[in-house]
Amino acid sequence: MFVLNELTRNLPSHVPFVGPETLERERSAPFVSRLGANESVFGPSQKAIEAMQREAVKVWRYGDPENHDLRQALAKHLGVKDAEIIIGEGIDGLLGYLTRMIVRPGTKVVTSLGAYPTFSYHVTGYGGELINVPYRDNYEDIEALLEAADHHQASLVYLANPDNPMGTFHQASVISDAIQRVPETCLLIIDEAYFECVPDQNVPPLNPDDQRVIRMRTFSKTYGMAGARVGYAIAHRDLVAAFNRVRNHFGMCRISQEGALAALDDQDHISRTQMRIAESKNIIMKIAESNDLDTIDSAANFVAINCGRDGEFAQRVLQSLSRQGVFVRMPFVAPLNQCIRVTVGPKSDMLVLEQALPKALCDARA
Amino acid sequence: MFVLNELTRNLPSHVPFVGPETLERERSAPFVSRLGANESVFGPSQKAIEAMQREAVKVWRYGDPENHDLRQALAKHLGVKDAEIIIGEGIDGLLGYLTRMIVRPGTKVVTSLGAYPTFSYHVTGYGGELINVPYRDNYEDIEALLEAADHHQASLVYLANPDNPMGTFHQASVISDAIQRVPETCLLIIDEAYFECVPDQNVPPLNPDDQRVIRMRTFSKTYGMAGARVGYAIAHRDLVAAFNRVRNHFGMCRISQEGALAALDDQDHISRTQMRIAESKNIIMKIAESNDLDTIDSAANFVAINCGRDGEFAQRVLQSLSRQGVFVRMPFVAPLNQCIRVTVGPKSDMLVLEQALPKALCDARA
Repeated sequence: MFVLNELTRNLPSHVPFVGPETLERERSAPFVSRLGANESVFGPSQKAIEAMQREAVKVWRYGDPENHDLRQALAKHLGVKDAEIIIGEGIDGLLGYLTRMIVRPGTKVVTSLGAYPTFSYHVTGYGGELINVPYRDNYEDIEALLEAADHHQASLVYLANPDNPMGTFHQASVISDAIQRVPETCLLIIDEAYFECVPDQNVPPLNPDDQRVIRMRTFSKTYGMAGARVGYAIAHRDLVAAFNRVRNHFGMCRISQEGALAALDDQDHISRTQMRIAESKNIIMKIAESNDLDTIDSAANFVAINCGRDGEFAQRVLQSLSRQGVFVRMPFVAPLNQCIRVTVGPKSDMLVLEQALPKALCDARA
Repeated sequence: MFVLNELTRNLPSHVPFVGPETLERERSAPFVSRLGANESVFGPSQKAIEAMQREAVKVWRYGDPENHDLRQALAKHLGVKDAEIIIGEGIDGLLGYLTRMIVRPGTKVVTSLGAYPTFSYHVTGYGGELINVPYRDNYEDIEALLEAADHHQASLVYLANPDNPMGTFHQASVISDAIQRVPETCLLIIDEAYFECVPDQNVPPLNPDDQRVIRMRTFSKTYGMAGARVGYAIAHRDLVAAFNRVRNHFGMCRISQEGALAALDDQDHISRTQMRIAESKNIIMKIAESNDLDTIDSAANFVAINCGRDGEFAQRVLQSLSRQGVFVRMPFVAPLNQCIRVTVGPKSDMLVLEQALPKALCDARA
């Protein structure tokens, strides 16, 4: 019979995020507004859709294990070399591979308390020891992260910029300074999933010669292709090459490869989506304001609305929204969990939110 | 800077199979016939294509991390419970997860010398020690595999049935007997990627209560959806549950999930494909015969043609075929590598093969 190894035996059974489909099955009805997973409700480029529809007839072929065309296109788009780009099954997949390559039982890894749970899942999964640094005023606390990395001789430190779940953003100068101060034997992961949402995209220039940092990006957010599972990272060519020792070489969906290629080529769609994200964030802020709630300034495609009381209260707001057909999420830990996290969306979704939120607050107060 | 852990540092850079796209880039021309990757050149169900095309507009949504609908449909189709089915990014992905759960540095794993390299890649990748058992007369040698598993106290033993790259098949009674004799602390992996190609599908009934075996299947072969990356396994519910501790929960492409669901529902297409596979195998055998070459009886969707000399000769045959626009592969190790492995295909592809093979043999002899 099967005998799990010790590491796996001691891992908890994991449910990362309960998917909206699960919640829909529980409530026996689809959501009216899907504003909980920071997807792009505005959708992908029409050209990407058409490319995927065309490619569907070729799905009998495995995808190119080298992701050659997409790496070439990204290299050109980003001004780096294709040997400095690795593509994987979403940032989630890449975080898994990277963790596997660096972490072994006992390896110290630094992240923020309440930051992306899937990264923590991978670290724990490979036996790493997490050091969780509290947020400071809704921002990831870069000083404290670096200090913890140094103090604990960590091998990895994780920073999302813009942050998820709060949406806060550190300017390029702050990040550049942080990169300079990464401890000698530590790698800084900058998760830039929401990069394209940043109004002026004021992030440090890509510099794959720098072995201290890996930058991760995705087609799941502004590109509107979460379901396709295409993430990528820009890093030193030696680190990129190392992914080839562990990754699932034939792991990429062929249709997704073609879709990403077409999506990248349609930057007009990205510009339009960026405008729509900005508009929708303003609407969410106004809706919050008209309910006497504060919001956190967001550089991402969602807004954290502070419900003004503790996490239990925010949970009740979320549950009422869910009953009314509005799917949103909330941070997992205090004090961030005073907030609910609302993804931007078209005006129709904003109208639903506008109508549902007052009742949700009323329900929560009852 | 990044510091790879010891295990990763000592892994070789890996190229599992050079993809046909890479070969096409090298020869600066597309292949005329793609008969090397055991894909289904006959293509997927038209209903699956349409389902994927419809789903493309919803690609902004993440796929359901529970794969709920597909697991339900498979459970019904197979007569097992959905808790006994795990879905992943192809059998490759599932083999990776399974290896991770069971292997640690030094763990012994038994496979056949020349069998599926991607399984060996995963085992090596997690520090396992491979014990390679030679084929016997083009068959995986079950007696010797079990003996090696027992002798080395292996934790895993891998068997593909039908086999790849030879296409040979062990009848249900032989497999049932093998399952009975798996050593106490060992798991038997039966890779049934080519299951639907087996003429009478004479394999042991599924019995997920049996903790000694995991059966792996896929939409990549007879279902014609290799590019979609949908594999699944049937196993004891405790083993299935353990995958949730390590897998990339949001790793599945949403379009692929819908495609697989529609493909499963179109069993008429599978019946038609099975007939076409059988027809094409007959044609390949006749082409070989007319060139005075022997073939190995195949229960899969390909035929191993023995080129009658050593591996170097077969390599030259393969290269000439490639120059003529016909993509085929060959086994990696002697004595299997006397053969080239030709995937079945429509009559147009068979015509190309018929014309190219005599010249390839002539070139190889020169």
